[in-house]
Amino acid sequence: MNILYDSVLDGPLPNVDKAALLAALRAALPDLAIVHRSEDLKPYECDGLSAYRTMPLLVVLPERMEQVQTLLRLCHQRGVPVVARGAGTGLSGGALPLSQGILLVMARFNRILEINPQGRYARVQPGVRNLAISQAAAPHGLYYAPDPSSQIACSIGGNVAENAGGVHCLKYGLTVHNLLKIEILTIEGEQLVLGSDALDSPGFDLLALFTGSEGMLGIVTEVTVKLLPKPQVARVLLASFENAQDAGRAVAEIIKAGIIPGGLEMMDNLAIRAAEDFIHAGYPVDAAAILLCELDGVEADVQEDCERVEALLMAAGAREVRLACDEAERMRFWAGRKNAFPAVGRLSPDYYCMDGTIPRRELPRVLQGIQALSGAFGLRVANVFHAGDGNLHPLILFDANLPGELERAEVVGGKILELCVAVGGSITGEHGVGREKINQMCAQFNRDEISLFHAIKAAFDPLGLLNPGKNIPTLQRCAEFGALHVHHGQLPFPDLERF
Amino acid sequence: MNILYDSVLDGPLPNVDKAALLAALRAALPDLAIVHRSEDLKPYECDGLSAYRTMPLLVVLPERMEQVQTLLRLCHQRGVPVVARGAGTGLSGGALPLSQGILLVMARFNRILEINPQGRYARVQPGVRNLAISQAAAPHGLYYAPDPSSQIACSIGGNVAENAGGVHCLKYGLTVHNLLKIEILTIEGEQLVLGSDALDSPGFDLLALFTGSEGMLGIVTEVTVKLLPKPQVARVLLASFENAQDAGRAVAEIIKAGIIPGGLEMMDNLAIRAAEDFIHAGYPVDAAAILLCELDGVEADVQEDCERVEALLMAAGAREVRLACDEAERMRFWAGRKNAFPAVGRLSPDYYCMDGTIPRRELPRVLQGIQALSGAFGLRVANVFHAGDGNLHPLILFDANLPGELERAEVVGGKILELCVAVGGSITGEHGVGREKINQMCAQFNRDEISLFHAIKAAFDPLGLLNPGKNIPTLQRCAEFGALHVHHGQLPFPDLERF
Repeated sequence: MNILYDSVLDGPLPNVDKAALLAALRAALPDLAIVHRSEDLKPYECDGLSAYRTMPLLVVLPERMEQVQTLLRLCHQRGVPVVARGAGTGLSGGALPLSQGILLVMARFNRILEINPQGRYARVQPGVRNLAISQAAAPHGLYYAPDPSSQIACSIGGNVAENAGGVHCLKYGLTVHNLLKIEILTIEGEQLVLGSDALDSPGFDLLALFTGSEGMLGIVTEVTVKLLPKPQVARVLLASFENAQDAGRAVAEIIKAGIIPGGLEMMDNLAIRAAEDFIHAGYPVDAAAILLCELDGVEADVQEDCERVEALLMAAGAREVRLACDEAERMRFWAGRKNAFPAVGRLSPDYYCMDGTIPRRELPRVLQGIQALSGAFGLRVANVFHAGDGNLHPLILFDANLPGELERAEVVGGKILELCVAVGGSITGEHGVGREKINQMCAQFNRDEISLFHAIKAAFDPLGLLNPGKNIPTLQRCAEFGALHVHHGQLPFPDLERF
Repeated sequence: MNILYDSVLDGPLPNVDKAALLAALRAALPDLAIVHRSEDLKPYECDGLSAYRTMPLLVVLPERMEQVQTLLRLCHQRGVPVVARGAGTGLSGGALPLSQGILLVMARFNRILEINPQGRYARVQPGVRNLAISQAAAPHGLYYAPDPSSQIACSIGGNVAENAGGVHCLKYGLTVHNLLKIEILTIEGEQLVLGSDALDSPGFDLLALFTGSEGMLGIVTEVTVKLLPKPQVARVLLASFENAQDAGRAVAEIIKAGIIPGGLEMMDNLAIRAAEDFIHAGYPVDAAAILLCELDGVEADVQEDCERVEALLMAAGAREVRLACDEAERMRFWAGRKNAFPAVGRLSPDYYCMDGTIPRRELPRVLQGIQALSGAFGLRVANVFHAGDGNLHPLILFDANLPGELERAEVVGGKILELCVAVGGSITGEHGVGREKINQMCAQFNRDEISLFHAIKAAFDPLGLLNPGKNIPTLQRCAEFGALHVHHGQLPFPDLERF
């Protein structure tokens, strides 16, 4: 099932002398933890997108900024590619190693440096887990808002690299909206501060540029995140629908009514059954779709919104609306949703989790398209998504041991993303491009836009040593892929109707 | 009082043949409105920062995207610098013309293209006025949140260029947080789409990079902004204080209590008296400082927050707290604040409006520093600021006709900004760097950071034709300025104590 690195990089690989590199590393950094034997390297051969695997040349686990700095300078001098990795939970293969490159694991940078309740920020090292920040801030009544499903495990450095989201991003924004400042090292070992503790930072907005840049521009060594006051109350409504179209319409109605839920999530029947089987969340297993709508804020406000949302859900055709009767039930409702991916994983030896975004109004049509693709290619697809954001997560089930299934799954995934682009959406919501969606970037952007990405990459990393082959395709790759540019709905609709 | 363009550009000017350029423009664009006679060019010699004036070589007022495209290509071919301008209300001289360049006025791009209540966005041309967007969205119960004081006049294209703020940015963010998508033209005439209608856009975050780039990376030709539901109610509290330190402390207490006001503004005695004299807002003219605190949301929530904020204000030492008794009084309270700049302008022939940001905890100390600088240089300073954000707007009063006063005002302004940087803040809040703060960029950033800005500039505009001499200083300029790098509080504090 290995996908070779060479096919990723879009070009010839430099041939790195492993023994010489190892010797040079040991000479320059006697304290640095280095993994170099094949059997020890095995656990690092993939990130959360396990369909793609490559054995890294070497893995290093530094503990101090100065070690990273020396390492980067050495790689820069020798022209050795570097892939940074946090907890390795990413779902687009952004931390997929290179067979001729170093995997730089930042997991040991795991200290919380400061929790400042007055300034409402936390200053942490990049290897700190997402949830650990909220736990450390909890005594002050504060928390860090973005909550990817992997928040128990994923690290904040990885969140910055992928501009991670979560079920509460509808109201509270993605990672980029919740950062104040980061410190980075460039491939040349220069230390830069992007953003500031203050409202605005002059010059170009490099903090936002860096967020979501997938390890291609530099290595994060420190992160200052905003903390928010915990809402007084949070309530969750669970609505069941006889068909997914009605659920899609309900989402549009809630948003149109001027309500901004803390979270607004949708799951289809396959996902409902899988989650219920795994977590026993109390989901109605015969519903075609459910919506989970969380409302948070002060008591009176939440009370009023709950009533309004319930009325809107019923009007849109909900069969039943249930309010989580206590905090334990609320947590159970969310546990089902947050564990939907592993739950679906139990149905099938392998699955692909896609991540695309569409305008909310296109929900019903895109759901139909996904269903048609599923039928045409003979692969089951479960749908779990941040409906309020229009952020889809189709889970394509397949068995990599059956010849051709992986390839078919890849084709279906790609076609779903192109469908997102065609209706005016985008090929990512919160998982990044990584290795997985590199071809679909050619559908999202035109030649000039991709050239501009390369020029920006070159401004930070002229030799192209940081995470090559991810995120931004070469123009040559796009040409080979067919240069299918379907920018913002320009794909002819007759073609689309086929799905 | 003219400050010559040559001193701004940091380098030798290209010598442009005006007659030949005019002929070429007329040949390529027979329909283009061109201003070329000295007497007609006069109104364009400055923007909202009137202390700096330069007569542009030519002014063009295109009406169609294709005209802008052809114009840019022609300038690119001939190496002619281009400065873009919206309504010309900017306060940092970002749209200051060049004596050897074209001033590209985008005012005629003034159509609202789409108001979409379901998608909660507005698609507009760049010359549309900020307030006009909210007016067009009002029938749907929606509005555009960022509200610079100049919102009646300023254009959304200029807001994008400067990443404009306003009194409600504490809760609702700056321009960058309220954009979905922009269309731009590069200096080579390429049309690019940055951002998307969807939640996230893959690749590097060029939308955020472009926002606040002050016309140095490209020309905005279309803007899609987010619309928010209008809060059900908004109430304003006015608190008077015997001394500014107490007011500063009250700000910190409100934020610490987990309340996020819609706006939290502070004015000192000089500003209070000026505004009261001009607007008759009902301000207490004998107070050392006032705070205006707006709370918005649903009725019950606002009611509760009003009571909590009032208690916090009294505990912090407020002499009196008044709740605006009706909508008319609320609008009057805000009118005083929003007209504070022109009001202060009536006290003095000229004034400099500075714009820096500091951590909130440093408010009392920085206020003392500003007072000391005011005394030392013999220039009155009025303070008006977005206190919740720590965004200061010291207004330095001077008379440009008195020899040396402009220069002294510039020195005081510069020192105030350096003070902001030294306490861990930044030299901008919402006005941009422009021409005004170009030297202070050398205090904010180090050599590597400024080099990176130049590399990014070169990725978009390798010939450096777009708004040269603004925003990002050359390293040579920084060397001449003394390369005073006081990055994030590293300026030795003994030095600071002198103020």
